[in-house]
Amino acid sequence: MPSQALPGFRDFYPDELELRAHIFRTWREVARRYGFEEYDGPPLEPLDIYTAKSGSEIVGQLYNFTDKGGREVALRPEMTPTFARMVSARANGLRKPIRWFSIPQLFRYERQQRGRLREHFQLNCDLVGEAGPLADAELIALSIDVMRAFGLTERDVRARVSDRRVLGALLAAAGVSAAHLGDAYQAIDKAERSRPGELAAQLRSAGLGDAVIEKVFAVAAIRGRPALEAALAGLPDAGAAAPLLTALDALDAMGLGAYVDVDLSIVRGLAYYTGTVFELFDAGRTLRAICGGGRYDGLLLALGGVDLPALGFGMGDVVLGELLRERGLAPPARAEVDVFVAAVTPEDVPHALALAHELRDAGLACEFALAAQPLGRQLKQADARGARRAIVIGPDDRARGEVVLKDLAGKTQAPVRRDAVLAAVAAGDAGAHTGSRDG
Amino acid sequence: MPSQALPGFRDFYPDELELRAHIFRTWREVARRYGFEEYDGPPLEPLDIYTAKSGSEIVGQLYNFTDKGGREVALRPEMTPTFARMVSARANGLRKPIRWFSIPQLFRYERQQRGRLREHFQLNCDLVGEAGPLADAELIALSIDVMRAFGLTERDVRARVSDRRVLGALLAAAGVSAAHLGDAYQAIDKAERSRPGELAAQLRSAGLGDAVIEKVFAVAAIRGRPALEAALAGLPDAGAAAPLLTALDALDAMGLGAYVDVDLSIVRGLAYYTGTVFELFDAGRTLRAICGGGRYDGLLLALGGVDLPALGFGMGDVVLGELLRERGLAPPARAEVDVFVAAVTPEDVPHALALAHELRDAGLACEFALAAQPLGRQLKQADARGARRAIVIGPDDRARGEVVLKDLAGKTQAPVRRDAVLAAVAAGDAGAHTGSRDG
Repeated sequence: MPSQALPGFRDFYPDELELRAHIFRTWREVARRYGFEEYDGPPLEPLDIYTAKSGSEIVGQLYNFTDKGGREVALRPEMTPTFARMVSARANGLRKPIRWFSIPQLFRYERQQRGRLREHFQLNCDLVGEAGPLADAELIALSIDVMRAFGLTERDVRARVSDRRVLGALLAAAGVSAAHLGDAYQAIDKAERSRPGELAAQLRSAGLGDAVIEKVFAVAAIRGRPALEAALAGLPDAGAAAPLLTALDALDAMGLGAYVDVDLSIVRGLAYYTGTVFELFDAGRTLRAICGGGRYDGLLLALGGVDLPALGFGMGDVVLGELLRERGLAPPARAEVDVFVAAVTPEDVPHALALAHELRDAGLACEFALAAQPLGRQLKQADARGARRAIVIGPDDRARGEVVLKDLAGKTQAPVRRDAVLAAVAAGDAGAHTGSRDG
Repeated sequence: MPSQALPGFRDFYPDELELRAHIFRTWREVARRYGFEEYDGPPLEPLDIYTAKSGSEIVGQLYNFTDKGGREVALRPEMTPTFARMVSARANGLRKPIRWFSIPQLFRYERQQRGRLREHFQLNCDLVGEAGPLADAELIALSIDVMRAFGLTERDVRARVSDRRVLGALLAAAGVSAAHLGDAYQAIDKAERSRPGELAAQLRSAGLGDAVIEKVFAVAAIRGRPALEAALAGLPDAGAAAPLLTALDALDAMGLGAYVDVDLSIVRGLAYYTGTVFELFDAGRTLRAICGGGRYDGLLLALGGVDLPALGFGMGDVVLGELLRERGLAPPARAEVDVFVAAVTPEDVPHALALAHELRDAGLACEFALAAQPLGRQLKQADARGARRAIVIGPDDRARGEVVLKDLAGKTQAPVRRDAVLAAVAAGDAGAHTGSRDG
């Protein structure tokens, strides 16, 4: 038996799953506040829904195969084609705007690099049916509020926001022809990860003159709203920036402006974005992007679906988990057991079982010794299970209609009437829970 | 673009996901009460961990392929090999007994039949490191308490319990040799789904005499504890039944005896069970098994792992979901939105955004119109979103430092001070939530 998972795949032992569960719970909670409904699709899909969107080159990065029915299939590398299929199949019956989220596990056969995984989980939030800029603000706000719900502040994470329409207008004014717009986007997209000379050479060989190339990089270097508005002042059509500026105003109105940086180097490599684009990064930029998304108005139709404006983002669990651990914001390992029930003699065992079951029915996490053991060993087991309290059931106490309730942290104990145990434990438990939440 | 998922795979639209989420939440909640910790492993694993357990015949039922690194891999058809690998890799460091659960999605390439899926989700609960019968009672009790948590009573579901050790002793006393025990188990396992003559013929051709065959079916026909104890009375070694009887006593002590049927026709086809075996069925037996499991003491070692006693069960989401729907126990579609914020004029929009964000920060699900619309249209949208309340922000009210809070169900409305909105909504919300929970 191999002792490890496949390379690039994770085992989630209970400690690790605790962080994952914390991330999923927080994602669900914030999405709910924004009126988003959860959906899911199959992790295995027809291969062609991915090649239709991304071209046949993507096959090299997929877990694809022929199934036993001769179908070409692939483990999902992204959620958008599934989302587009599901929305399009029922587009007429769904209330607009459609606000949906999902937490799929996604798979890519990437060449193994240090720390690079072949699977991850991703929060996908999409909003369909609204072309106006409040929808863009809504989606960016949701991603920022997810950060805030984890305890991350504007000193921890930054939302870098741009807009393809603004970039297009500024690049056109800089002398980039429509035919060269894609080359310019590509250069801007790579600017952070390449030497500038390299990209300039590429643009030159694509046919751009040196003066234009310089202006392209000047556009990409625009940071902050004042710099953007200064650049827009010289434009013949400043209206291209109206949606972005309205979205920024809306984020300010929501009280989230402190998280937002206008940053025209953000393009999002994928070709299908048509408007706002944004990415979330840790403020120190030591990690990869936490989240990325934007408006993709033509995509659903291009994928053979409905003609509805749409926008969305994806947020992975890996970079986010690293950041939470780094900032000390991962959840503390919780006590798994609220109460441990111990039996003094074999005759007490049925009484312990009955009480344990009552406690569980009341919603408490409860354990007892599964094999006959001396009381001291049982209490050690209670400690090892992280139990805050133990209830000891012995023959003499039973004869008096009592049990002993022990506070394992405070090392105190007191007799309690058998018929008052539930109330006593529940009262203590409410206190203990509140305490640990405050702590 | 295909408009459907692959055959045998499910799309979960929000309404369908609501039932799935209810099932998962309930599984997690009951497992927690029993002190079980959640884990997970990869959905893609090396093929040989499945063939090592089940033989090469299983490959015909798997989604298996060669990955781009030349590895033979398969989508997981079951969780036990992953569980065995994970437990064995850290067996020394893990506290015993190990109580773990997981909710994996599992995949089998089965020939398509009506309603038969190729994927499902399964609650897997396993308990490792305890050989005594209280562990068996604990696990059966957990499965029954999951049923109870869904609102299913002993009139809805039955736990059919047997024990391989008891069956083995009774069959030996009936004259079945050790060499024929497997044949007898197989016949008993199939008894419900075959014509008796057919199985008798098989046993005859395996070499059993007619008198013995008759006794085999008599053993398989034992139902209820009195019949079992009567059959045991004639045994030279009645001790083989001690663990089962102790487990049954423990289930009685927990108050769950009313759910339990001793049923010696339960074998669980899989060869690796060594003790207690059990299945949960709907009481009318119109559906397939809801849950199945038992003790498999030698399996972890046989899979190349640790030598620890163990037991576990699996409970799928499909049959359970059918039963919940049939009994009217599926969760009602909930209102997605608590409050809808409407702006009377464009100048009110920033104020609406600010208030909506405050409400979301307070944990409320909140929406507003993403495009400028007359008030009437906005309130219609609020209704369509299932909002219970709306807050209307207009210029005159704003000038007075007020907003209007509308109860959309009761069709009432009242002005509220802007700085008292959160408290007013939270108070109304607590009432509404309590109301819907009671309802």
